[in-house]
Amino acid sequence: MTAEITADIHARLAGYRDRFDAVFARYFDTLAQQRLPRSTFVPEALELVRDMSLRGGKRLRVALLYEAARLVTPDPVPGLEEAALSIELLQTHGLIHDDIIDDSPVRRGASSVYYAYRDRYPDREQTALGLAVLAGDLAAFWSVQVLMSAPVSREARRAMAAVQATAGADTVVGQVLDLERDFGPLPDREALDAVSEYKSARYSVLAPLQLGLLAAGADPADHHEELARYARLVGVSGQLRDDYLDLFADTATLGKAAGTDLRSGRRSYAVCAVLAATADQERALVEAALTAPGCPPETVEQVQRIARRHGVDQQLRADIRQNAEGAAAVAAGWRGRWRGDAVEFFEYLPLWAAERAL
Amino acid sequence: MTAEITADIHARLAGYRDRFDAVFARYFDTLAQQRLPRSTFVPEALELVRDMSLRGGKRLRVALLYEAARLVTPDPVPGLEEAALSIELLQTHGLIHDDIIDDSPVRRGASSVYYAYRDRYPDREQTALGLAVLAGDLAAFWSVQVLMSAPVSREARRAMAAVQATAGADTVVGQVLDLERDFGPLPDREALDAVSEYKSARYSVLAPLQLGLLAAGADPADHHEELARYARLVGVSGQLRDDYLDLFADTATLGKAAGTDLRSGRRSYAVCAVLAATADQERALVEAALTAPGCPPETVEQVQRIARRHGVDQQLRADIRQNAEGAAAVAAGWRGRWRGDAVEFFEYLPLWAAERAL
Repeated sequence: MTAEITADIHARLAGYRDRFDAVFARYFDTLAQQRLPRSTFVPEALELVRDMSLRGGKRLRVALLYEAARLVTPDPVPGLEEAALSIELLQTHGLIHDDIIDDSPVRRGASSVYYAYRDRYPDREQTALGLAVLAGDLAAFWSVQVLMSAPVSREARRAMAAVQATAGADTVVGQVLDLERDFGPLPDREALDAVSEYKSARYSVLAPLQLGLLAAGADPADHHEELARYARLVGVSGQLRDDYLDLFADTATLGKAAGTDLRSGRRSYAVCAVLAATADQERALVEAALTAPGCPPETVEQVQRIARRHGVDQQLRADIRQNAEGAAAVAAGWRGRWRGDAVEFFEYLPLWAAERAL
Repeated sequence: MTAEITADIHARLAGYRDRFDAVFARYFDTLAQQRLPRSTFVPEALELVRDMSLRGGKRLRVALLYEAARLVTPDPVPGLEEAALSIELLQTHGLIHDDIIDDSPVRRGASSVYYAYRDRYPDREQTALGLAVLAGDLAAFWSVQVLMSAPVSREARRAMAAVQATAGADTVVGQVLDLERDFGPLPDREALDAVSEYKSARYSVLAPLQLGLLAAGADPADHHEELARYARLVGVSGQLRDDYLDLFADTATLGKAAGTDLRSGRRSYAVCAVLAATADQERALVEAALTAPGCPPETVEQVQRIARRHGVDQQLRADIRQNAEGAAAVAAGWRGRWRGDAVEFFEYLPLWAAERAL
């Protein structure tokens, strides 16, 4: 891919993000103007959901959505704004509940909604928990609601709502699988991949692809196997990358100390790979770290050294790249059927995301 | 209303309930058969959501839905089954999260989903909490998903999904208002009525009415004010009744000791009415009970005596009846426009529900 092409892709990425962030802010302005009963708690919930939503990062899901429509047509496609809002509200819902589930104080560089409530109501933990659950529920229902006004055909709107409801349910299943992963016998690769697929690939990659195609008038069901395979490979590559960075990256890259997964007893791809590569005393050391919440930085460093000695870092990097290349190969198969410059986007994205880690 | 008419209404009520319970059980059988990743936690979540859902009681929401369609036509109306499933799944979602918010061990005569998980994972409270949040989320997404396959026109399906998403969001707003009610200055009647309307009337009365009319080919938007007024009056009457019974009913009627609201610091209609009717030492006693969690049965009895002395019980009964009569009067206005025997149902229901309490 030429430098010109990749520069164009990055310009598109930045454009989607900036435009969407403005749309998202306007959406919350409109929500805040609706007639609601006299209350201080309700506007406070809206404000906290808004703040979390607008700290949004790269908005890759939105980019995937717009590029999926561009697979079909270079023209503006009505309904993408509503689909993008739906996707990002579903994401907000997931983050708010995830931070309750993991008891996480920080998200996207500031307080999680759960901890924002705990700070506001320090004497009423149960109320803070309740309000955080409800804030996440609000985002979930808004995610469906916003699609219902999308200016697309009735059939497309139905299909888009079905995609989002399925993505929502699948993601919840993924979160359940994620909790199960840290219980009972050590998960095998199939189990780890199922977590990646359900917990992130389905709503972050597959649903945006399906929604973009639907809005543009194509039927994603005709290409379901390929789209699902692409999404799964991107999801696995991305989760491998996150887990790799969590164990091996330096604090500057990571924005926090390495080893969060290890310290929290999470059986990530990286943690499982270290366990699989070690035996006897080494393995016992890793297992002890995993079951002792909050092990010290020295233990994390020890585990890093052990992992490197067994080549686990290299093995993970190869694995990340292989999955990203697999996804790019699936997208390459779309040439001819779909518009070339959008196909290039889907080929480029997984490799670019993988390289950023390596 | 003749005895024959009311007997017919009760036969219809029992019929809706029995048929729906069978449909609901089949729905969960189908869910359990879908292909999902290898897991023990996921089937366990399905089973707990199923158990909670099938302990369903009278299914008045389902009856309202079917009778709303009968306002328009005596013929079978496609799409009502899916709408009924959607309504009851939304209810399950609300109950599961409500029991987390209120830290309630019991629901519908057995363990709440939250406490079922706590019993299963006694050493992992955080996991139990997380799984309960996710079980509620699953029910919410299923509630939307099931509507998407309703065999109705595309426009009706879109409108029905919009109704459910709005009902979901409104109910969450109602739950937030409900938490706020127990904070800060004492709520006035307007605030209490807003809780009743948002927390229960919108999804339990208004949404079934709207969904039934939509499935039958009518447009509920043409009659929105009346439908909303009916729903609000039924909702306020019902909440007044629940709050009245909670303070004044004997243990045999209630199935538990009276005074749960008082003991939990909940500013119910009944508790607020006692506060409004009392002064000085009496009021101080009620306030003290309200702020001391778990006050003894003797205190509850003292508050009951004080309340009766000031006629609060009679005043609440009159209030319940007045709201129920108001709802019946709204429904009576539907004669001529809509089918008589279904109109009779909507006239009868609020008064019957109120009388059961009194």
